[in-house]
Amino acid sequence: MDPDSVAKAFVEHYYRTFDANRADLGNLYQEGSMLTFEGSKIQGAQAIVAKLTSLPFQQCQHSISTVDCQPSGPAGGMVVFVSGSLQLGGEQHALKFSQMFHLMPTPQGSFYVFNDIFRLNYA
Amino acid sequence: MDPDSVAKAFVEHYYRTFDANRADLGNLYQEGSMLTFEGSKIQGAQAIVAKLTSLPFQQCQHSISTVDCQPSGPAGGMVVFVSGSLQLGGEQHALKFSQMFHLMPTPQGSFYVFNDIFRLNYA
Repeated sequence: MDPDSVAKAFVEHYYRTFDANRADLGNLYQEGSMLTFEGSKIQGAQAIVAKLTSLPFQQCQHSISTVDCQPSGPAGGMVVFVSGSLQLGGEQHALKFSQMFHLMPTPQGSFYVFNDIFRLNYA
Repeated sequence: MDPDSVAKAFVEHYYRTFDANRADLGNLYQEGSMLTFEGSKIQGAQAIVAKLTSLPFQQCQHSISTVDCQPSGPAGGMVVFVSGSLQLGGEQHALKFSQMFHLMPTPQGSFYVFNDIFRLNYA
C-alpha cells in the first residue's frame, strides 16, 4: 500500500473507533505517545485513553474533509494531517477540527500513534 | 530553551519571514524537505520556495492563534502545530489556516523544516 492509502485507512479506522468506543483507542498508542488536546499535554496510552473517555460528551460522529500525509524520516514513520468536522450528540452545529498524527511503525508491520495534536477550529 | 519556546520562536520567525520576503524561507528547508500546500506535494528547498513565491498574492500578514509542540522521537526533532489567520492584501476578510511543521535539528544546533503541511480552514 502506498503511504497515502495507509494514512487514509488509519484515519478512517481511528475515527470509526473513536465514535464507536473511545476506550478501544488505547491499542493505537504506546507508553511514549503524546496527545495535546486543545493545549493540554498527556503522555502514555493509559492517560491518553483516560483523557479521551472523560471528554464531556457521549455520542459523536467525525466526518473527514482532508487527509494529507508525508514520510517523516528514515525511521519509517509518517505525519498525517486531518481536517474535518465533529458532530456531538444533541448539538445542532458540527464543530470543525484539525488534527495531526505522527505514526511510527510497529515490529508487526502496523503503525502506532507517537504524536497526536488536536485543535478545534473556532470560526 | 524549552521545546515550547523553541517552537514559538521558530513559528514567529517563519511567518515574519513569510510576510516580509517569502524567498528567504529557502534557508529553513533542505533537499529532503516536503511541503503539502492545499493538497499539492512539493519536495526540496528550491521547489518549495518556487511554490511559495508563486502564490497569487503579494502582501500578506499571518496572525498566530495557537502553537502546540511535541518531541517527535529520538532523532531530536519536534512536531509543531499552528492555527491562525492570514490577511491578504486587498482582501476584506482574513482566512483561517492550520499548519504543521516537523522540525529536525541541524549540526549547527538550529532546526530545519522536514515536513510542512498547510491547509486553509474553510468555514
